[in-house]
Amino acid sequence: MATDDTQPADGTVYLVGSGPGDPELLTLKAKRLLEDADIVLHDKLPGPKIIDMLPDDGCIDVGKRAHGDRTPQWEINERLVELAREGKSVVRLKGGDSFVFGRGGEEATYLAEHGVPFEVVPAVTSAVAAPAVAGIPVTHRDHASSVSFVTGHEDPTKPESAVDWGALAATGGTIVVLMGVTRLPLYTEALREAGMDPDTPVALVERATWPGQQVATGTLETIVEARDEVDISPPAVTVIGGVAGTRESVVEFLRNDYTPSDQHSDENTDD
Amino acid sequence: MATDDTQPADGTVYLVGSGPGDPELLTLKAKRLLEDADIVLHDKLPGPKIIDMLPDDGCIDVGKRAHGDRTPQWEINERLVELAREGKSVVRLKGGDSFVFGRGGEEATYLAEHGVPFEVVPAVTSAVAAPAVAGIPVTHRDHASSVSFVTGHEDPTKPESAVDWGALAATGGTIVVLMGVTRLPLYTEALREAGMDPDTPVALVERATWPGQQVATGTLETIVEARDEVDISPPAVTVIGGVAGTRESVVEFLRNDYTPSDQHSDENTDD
Repeated sequence: MATDDTQPADGTVYLVGSGPGDPELLTLKAKRLLEDADIVLHDKLPGPKIIDMLPDDGCIDVGKRAHGDRTPQWEINERLVELAREGKSVVRLKGGDSFVFGRGGEEATYLAEHGVPFEVVPAVTSAVAAPAVAGIPVTHRDHASSVSFVTGHEDPTKPESAVDWGALAATGGTIVVLMGVTRLPLYTEALREAGMDPDTPVALVERATWPGQQVATGTLETIVEARDEVDISPPAVTVIGGVAGTRESVVEFLRNDYTPSDQHSDENTDD
Repeated sequence: MATDDTQPADGTVYLVGSGPGDPELLTLKAKRLLEDADIVLHDKLPGPKIIDMLPDDGCIDVGKRAHGDRTPQWEINERLVELAREGKSVVRLKGGDSFVFGRGGEEATYLAEHGVPFEVVPAVTSAVAAPAVAGIPVTHRDHASSVSFVTGHEDPTKPESAVDWGALAATGGTIVVLMGVTRLPLYTEALREAGMDPDTPVALVERATWPGQQVATGTLETIVEARDEVDISPPAVTVIGGVAGTRESVVEFLRNDYTPSDQHSDENTDD
């Protein structure tokens, strides 16, 4: 079908978050749109249980490429426009929420620039859900009156790093780091150097709500050792602040149960 | 039934978030638990559409009291323990997510201290969803590599304020303020005084995903005027940062549609 940049598309793109991975944490709207979509574009981050629910036909894995690379963002953007111009109902499915470190904003801008109607379907972000299912509230009257989300992708020792760890420490609030397993030693050191108490509680939650969920706890000083002992691998969420210390007092009665599994996937994740 | 502090309860309490208010943004798990619960304790914040779905029997509104006061938190905590000890399946339903300024952490601690098994059911937080349905991503490669959530409940001119607006401004990330309609003039001034550019884009999203959703946009300098012109009332979410400026370029193609309504409720909200 010929494309015409001056014509609005007949189809619609739905930017849908899958939540942290438990299929029951999909929203009713996400479930309906996945069932009704002509085509779903996804990568591995929604997690094995949600990926397994998707129909084999009408489903494109844009996280994989022939040589093990990922599909570049511009190619995904173009594909979304192309499919919408064919009149299709297209779901772009992301792990967590599309607008929290999910590049949904870039996709929205590209779609609007190309005349493609789109809808955003917010989801349960892993930044809140991963701590929660481990018994950790990201805010708490006694511990934190703000919470900041940041990614651990950037190297804090590089001068061009956009993340100001010192300023984050100075807020006095909880800090939640997404995709921060590998660089854990770097940013915990940056926070200590910024004057954060080395005894500040820290928790790591791996594969939150997936089969094989694991939790490691420690302090800003001990968490790297704890990570290695528990053998935490990506994807995981790091929670830094007094709230991480409350887990201990509630975990005995916490009934969020994600059966451990030895079947850790070797698929590439975002870390 | 006699209660015995040494006996674990037979029932379970589910700390469930309702999401921002659109019933389709409930998770599948929240819907299942609401259907299966013996009793649901809620206030007004889940919004009119979700409240209307709840069964008349087996439902306690803990947001109302005889003389217009709210039920104090300690009374809600005691009620949850009492009902669980009667062997009931109890849902404590909150607007947004229970663990993001929802006092879920305090409830969890109290339940564990009293031997009550509980489960946390994370939800779509309004802090992410309200900006999203207005076309605003809270993070964006070009604008913000972190996002902080804070409440506007505290008076920033008081020395005992736990919120450090200067530190939040220094992060360079997006700032999302929950329950911040009334004190908007105070914290926008605090941010300008902390050196934040007065031209920083700001958006207010009232009743996100409820009937009667409204959006007002401006800058750190003009948003108070915009709030009054659009007549934004609580509950609303404030988004501060470059991301708020991206709405303009996408809104023409954004299909998140929440029909405006003149039926603004006079019920007390959290602001």
